[in-house]
Amino acid sequence: MAVIDARTWMQHLSIDECWQKLTRSSVGRIGVLVDSAPEIYPVNFVVHERSILFRTDAGSKLRGVDRSPAVCFEVDHINPDDRSGWSVLVKGRAHELTTSDELQGISEIGLDFWPLGDKAHWIRVRPIEVTGRRIHRR
Amino acid sequence: MAVIDARTWMQHLSIDECWQKLTRSSVGRIGVLVDSAPEIYPVNFVVHERSILFRTDAGSKLRGVDRSPAVCFEVDHINPDDRSGWSVLVKGRAHELTTSDELQGISEIGLDFWPLGDKAHWIRVRPIEVTGRRIHRR
Repeated sequence: MAVIDARTWMQHLSIDECWQKLTRSSVGRIGVLVDSAPEIYPVNFVVHERSILFRTDAGSKLRGVDRSPAVCFEVDHINPDDRSGWSVLVKGRAHELTTSDELQGISEIGLDFWPLGDKAHWIRVRPIEVTGRRIHRR
Repeated sequence: MAVIDARTWMQHLSIDECWQKLTRSSVGRIGVLVDSAPEIYPVNFVVHERSILFRTDAGSKLRGVDRSPAVCFEVDHINPDDRSGWSVLVKGRAHELTTSDELQGISEIGLDFWPLGDKAHWIRVRPIEVTGRRIHRR
C-alpha cells in the first residue's frame, strides 16, 4: 500500500515503479564530481539490463568518470501548475565502455541515440541504489 | 554572435541568457555531495539578488550543505521530439539562512513556495560560475 506523508505529501515509489519511470524516459540528468564538486548535465539515455547507458562527446567532462566513478542519474517530471510530479534517483558507479566485448553488446541494442559526432563514447551507470518519490503538494 | 559547433550542434549561452533562463524557471535541480557522492533533487526555487533560493524539509539530506557547501544547480528544457533544448548550470556555495537578518530579507520576497510543512528551511546558493548551452541535434 502506498503511504503518503501528510505533512509533505510525499510518497515513496517502489523499485518497480522507479524502473518503469526510467524505462519510459528518454532524457535524464547525470550527476558527476568534477574537482570535488557536483555538476549536472542532461543526457539522452536508455535503460539496458537494469543499467543506464548514454553517450558523451570526446573531451567532455563526463568522461572524467574514470577518476570519480561515483555518480548519480536522475529523471523527473514536475508539473508546476498543479504542483505534482515524481523523481527517481539512481546512485551508482559509471564506467566507459572500451573493450570490444562491451561495445559489441551495445551495438546490438539498435536504439536511437542523438548524434554526437564520430568520436562519442559510451558510458554505463551500474546502479547501487534506486529510489523514487511522488510529490503531491497541497 | 552566437557560435554553433558544427559537430555537436552545441551553442554556448551568454551569462545574461543563463540568468534569463533561471529567472523564468520555477523548478530546477540541486546537486549535492552526500558521503562523497553526488545526489540530485528537483526543487521549486526563485532567483533572488542573483542567487538561487529554495526551501527544504527539516531532516532532508539537502540540509547537509553545511558539511559540503560546494553544490550545483541546474535548469533545463529538452524537447525529445525535435531534439532541441537548453540547459544552465550554476556552480556555487550553499548555506542555510539562519540569522534573523537573513530571514527578514527573505520574508519580504513574498513569493509563492510550495508548502513543505512548518519546519522547512531556507537554502541560498551563491553562484561562483554560471554556464549554459543550447542544443540543436541533427
